[in-house]
Formats: sequence, C-alpha cells, structure tokens
Amino acid sequence: MSDRVEIWVGAGGGARDYPVILESGIRHRLPELLGRFAPEVVHWVVVSDENVGPLHAGAVSASLARAGLGGGLHTVPAGEEEKTRARWGAVTDALFELGVGRDGGVVAVGGGVVGDLAGFVAATFMRGIPVVQVPTSTLAMIDASVGGKTGVDTPAGKNLVGAFHAPSLVAIDPETAATLPRELLAQGLVEAVKHGAIFDEGYGDAIAAAAPGILDGDLAGLLPVVARSVEIKADVVTRDEREGGLRETLNFGHTVAHALERSYDYRIPHGTAVAHGMLCEARLGEEKGVSEPGTAARVERWLAVLGLGVEPGPGHRDRFVDALRRDKKVRDGTIRVVLLNRPGSVRRTPEGAWAHPVSVDEILALLT
Amino acid sequence: MSDRVEIWVGAGGGARDYPVILESGIRHRLPELLGRFAPEVVHWVVVSDENVGPLHAGAVSASLARAGLGGGLHTVPAGEEEKTRARWGAVTDALFELGVGRDGGVVAVGGGVVGDLAGFVAATFMRGIPVVQVPTSTLAMIDASVGGKTGVDTPAGKNLVGAFHAPSLVAIDPETAATLPRELLAQGLVEAVKHGAIFDEGYGDAIAAAAPGILDGDLAGLLPVVARSVEIKADVVTRDEREGGLRETLNFGHTVAHALERSYDYRIPHGTAVAHGMLCEARLGEEKGVSEPGTAARVERWLAVLGLGVEPGPGHRDRFVDALRRDKKVRDGTIRVVLLNRPGSVRRTPEGAWAHPVSVDEILALLT
Repeated sequence: MSDRVEIWVGAGGGARDYPVILESGIRHRLPELLGRFAPEVVHWVVVSDENVGPLHAGAVSASLARAGLGGGLHTVPAGEEEKTRARWGAVTDALFELGVGRDGGVVAVGGGVVGDLAGFVAATFMRGIPVVQVPTSTLAMIDASVGGKTGVDTPAGKNLVGAFHAPSLVAIDPETAATLPRELLAQGLVEAVKHGAIFDEGYGDAIAAAAPGILDGDLAGLLPVVARSVEIKADVVTRDEREGGLRETLNFGHTVAHALERSYDYRIPHGTAVAHGMLCEARLGEEKGVSEPGTAARVERWLAVLGLGVEPGPGHRDRFVDALRRDKKVRDGTIRVVLLNRPGSVRRTPEGAWAHPVSVDEILALLT
Repeated sequence: MSDRVEIWVGAGGGARDYPVILESGIRHRLPELLGRFAPEVVHWVVVSDENVGPLHAGAVSASLARAGLGGGLHTVPAGEEEKTRARWGAVTDALFELGVGRDGGVVAVGGGVVGDLAGFVAATFMRGIPVVQVPTSTLAMIDASVGGKTGVDTPAGKNLVGAFHAPSLVAIDPETAATLPRELLAQGLVEAVKHGAIFDEGYGDAIAAAAPGILDGDLAGLLPVVARSVEIKADVVTRDEREGGLRETLNFGHTVAHALERSYDYRIPHGTAVAHGMLCEARLGEEKGVSEPGTAARVERWLAVLGLGVEPGPGHRDRFVDALRRDKKVRDGTIRVVLLNRPGSVRRTPEGAWAHPVSVDEILALLT
C-alpha cells in the first residue's frame, strides 16, 4: 500500500466527482490541493470545534492565510448537542462577518458533527458554496467522507434537516487520529467492520488483524483500513442508481441500532449501537435460514477485537421494544432489514430488493 | 392562445425536468396533477400565508384531503419580514408535527415569500422532499416559477441562505390574480417588461397593449403574458450552461435596482426599483454608444403603462451613491451591467460575456 491513496467518488446529481485523498500530513498541504480541486474559491474559512481547533484547525487556518486564501477560523463548542439549526445560523452569520461571498468556501476540520454542520452551512450559504472535508475522527474518515450528506438535528430527531452537498475534496490525514482516545478509534472501526460484513470478507479479517495495533496507537495500519472502507462506500454510492438502491446495504445493522439508540435517548455511542445491531441482524439472518451457519459468529469475532460493550440498564428491554414498535419505518408490524448470505455478501430478496421485510416480533425474540 | 399552456423547464443539476402549467381553475385540479408529476408522494402539506390562505390555500388543502393525499395546511404570517431562518425552522417543525416523512411533499400556495420559504423547507426537509409551486402573485408567476431558487433572508441581506430545489410542478392559475390590488399586478408586470427588453421586442409591445386591461381587472390577457415570460425565462435557464452564463441577462435593470433598494432600506417595492433600474441601464447603453438611439424611450413607454413611481426623499441621491459605492460587486470602481443593442436584444462584450464592466461614476452621472 502506497503512502498516498486517491479515490474518486461519483457525486451524482449533476455535481462534480471529487477525490478522497489519504496521506499522512496532508493537512499541511491544503493550499495547493484547494487550488487544484476548487480553483474558483478565493476566500476559505475553516470551521472546527473546541477540541480539534487547537490541535489541527489553527495550523490549517494559518497555512491558508499564508497562501493568501483567506483562512479565517470559526470554532464551535464540541458535541452532538451543537448540531442544531441555531448553531447553523450562527456559523452562517460568522461567515458573513468574515466577509465570505459567492467566491468563498468552507474547510471543515473535525469529526462528524463539524462535517455535517459546516457542510450544511456551505450547502445553504448563498445557495451553496464549495466545502472541503478534513475528517479527524475514524468514524468521520470511514463513514462521512463519501455520500455528501450534510445536516443538523431537530427536536423531532437526528439529521432531520439537511442537504446533499458533495465536497470538492476530502482530505484524510491519519496523523490526526493520533490524539483520539482508544474508545473513539474503536467506534469508527465498527463502520469499517460493517463494510467487510456486507462486501468483503477478507477486509473483515484484515480489520480484526490490524485493530489491536491501531487501538494501541500504532497508526501505520489505519490508512489502508480507511482507504478500503472509502473504496467500498464510494463504489456502493456510485452504483446505487443503476442497482436499485444498493446504498440501502449500508444500513446493515442500523435498523436495530437506531431503535437501540432511541431506547437509550442517544446516550450510547453510535458505533456501539451499530455493533450490537449488526450482531442482532446477522443472527436474524441465520434464524431465518437466509445466512450460512457461522455468519454471526464471524462478525462477532471481528467486533470482539474492538472491545466495545454496553450494559443494558434496568427496564432496557422494554424501552427497546417500545422504540422499535414506535419506529416510523415499521409498517404493519414489519420493518426492512439487510440480511447476509455469509460474511461479505448481502442477500437480495426474490424481487431484487436489498432489504427484507422482517417482523418486529422476530427481532424481539432475539433479544437476550 | 389556448386555455392551457404547458412549458417544460430543464431543471439541471441532475434533477428532473418539470412542467409549468398555466390554466384557469388549475388550483382545483391539483390532486390529479400531483399524482402525475410527483407520484412518489403520499402525504402533501399545503404552506400558505394569512392573506392567501383564506382565499385559495384552504380549498387546495381540502381537495388534497378528499383525495386521500394528506392535505394538512400550515399558514404563516404574511410579509417579507417572515422570510427568516426562524420561520423556516417553525414550518419544518410543523411538518414533522403533521406526520410528514420522506414520502411527503409541500404545496406552496402564495406569492414570492411563501414560495421561497416553503421551497427552502422542502429543500432541506430530511435532505429534500418534492415541492409544488402554486404562485398567486403576478411577480411570483412571472419571475419565481422558473429557476428553482429557494431561500430566506438573514440580517446580512436578502436571500442569503437557501438552496436550488427544482419543483415537481408549477401550477399557475390566473384566477388567483383576481384578488390582487392594482399595484401588485403592476409590480409583477415589470419583470415581464424586462423579458421583452432583453429578448423579445414584440412581447414588450404586447405587454404594453395588454397591461391597461389587466390592471383594470380584466384578467383574460394575463395568461398569455405570463406564459411568454415563463417561456423566455425557461429558455434562458436551460441554455445557460451552454451559453456562458446567459442567465446573467436576467439581471438587466437589477444592478441599479439593488442599489436603489438598499438606499431605501428595502422600503420600495422590488418592481418599482427594477423599473427605475431598467430605465437607468437602458440610458447607460445609449450614453456609451452601445444601444441604438431610442432604446431607453421605448422601454420607458412600455413601463409608463404600469403607472409605477417613486418619489425620492431628501438626501436620496447621496444614499443611493453610498449604496452603489458599498456594493460588494463593485471592484476597482466598476460593476457589471447588462446592456441592450436595442429593445429585445442584449449586447455581448467583445469577449462574449453577457454583462459589461461599467464605472460607477458613469451610472451616477445619469442620476437626476
């Protein structure tokens, strides 16, 4: 694996295709890359949060200023509770105060919250200006780099307001993961395991082999792992329109995960919820005779290396049941779930759909 | 001219092309049309304002409910001062309370404010749901039906936050103009005159001939006028990408108009400002020797029928000068202005651009 990986993503919707570039230290080379991939922008503003700002965004901002490309820095408080319409409005106003116009652009330096929030600001600023994503958490590197989803939360739920806004460039610098706690590194790798589970058995094995080193802070193994995930997700998103909603396969584990998150009022990490969801949905495939025996055990071995756990509190099962029953996607007692043939292969329905109608009762029967 | 006109608009950006349909009484036939042009939507919500709601939106809402297509009605206070991010958030929340999900859609019944606001809600609701525009003011019929611009105002200026979101259908019912005061009818026709001035001399003459009847409430002449404007604007927007920013021609009159509006703190109607702007920019073309003699006089005759006027208050000229000098689009003392060859024909620059750099001083010299 070379030290630099460049993966092109089909943006769809008339937007330009864009590259995801992975390279150690790439955060220090942004001025040249911005000139290449978004030459129409003359005034960049960096948006980050209070955690990542001092670590990385300040340096990015300074390098842009030196290059005569603007470089103003706007820092928001850290945390999912900042992903609101009010914060979106405040960041937008800050851009106007910094003198950004139609020839401006946004560099988002941070995790998923910063990427979603700053992306939505860019999507709606004067009806859309370019955004460059510099994801600094493993989850954002693996999951949020591809697909162009931006948005904020509302009282009615997460990510309910937003827009598709393809970035001009995604620059992934594995060095920024060096400051992440072990727990956050592991959270991000859960989505990588998902990519292995649905499309590439060998990749699942590779993650399990590389994970102990990555979690111990030896980050040499992170670049190829993130690169393979980006490759898989880019391929899925690009093929989506041709292949009848192939993108839905990325929901593997997420039907159960979303109910789990709601039952915990979102007080468990997303990765933890998805890990449990994948195990539950893999077992469901075996129970229904769709998946080869041993499928769930294999996925479980990949996940075990990550050392994630969640301790259900008292009354947890009832709340989970309630969350699943009240799920808006439940119709006539059934919900759609992605099922595996075996690790690395998704089973289509006889009609060619990528998710299967499963009764909520079948899911509940699997809960321990 | 038939009683029904259907004009297809190229949406661009990967979005589906959509029809603008003009027909008396079409507002009563929406359920069938929605089924045809947005069959994926099972739950429509009508958004309107307190002026238009009682007149038209209630009936639209009831017809949708009878057809089993939802039909909830959300009414906002009337006025440009409601075109805010806060109101956008409130309308979004109302949609969630009405149970709208990914399979929902928005029918915007009203003038430009309702269309822009409800369009932006639809553009960002769960990352975008369909919107159908039912413009009820002449200005919205003529100017806002084509182009897919949506958005709201911010303290920094008008329409500064928004998105391009092509509607699934624009349904124009000339009968809804029957309740408009003469002044508002005239305001809308200014943009029609603009279309004549830049592309179709005969159309300018036709507007001047039809306007007295339209303003007196004989609306038989409105449908062909609106139809020709929609046709011209659709043609311009569709050819824009091929023809190096042809869309910029639609800015004729608007460079001066925007400065005028700012100098009045937006307390003059947009149509009035554009009428003055067109006259000023037409005279500028003659002064510079670009336009045939008599061009400005011809545009002035078309506009005179509309009977719009503005009385500059004391100190007005100074404020206008200040607004123009502070215009963000002014670079090195020059600003870009669309100039005519003669009525119905735009002059390109020697380099092929659709707008000419003009010194601010040349514009100021024309002010009386």
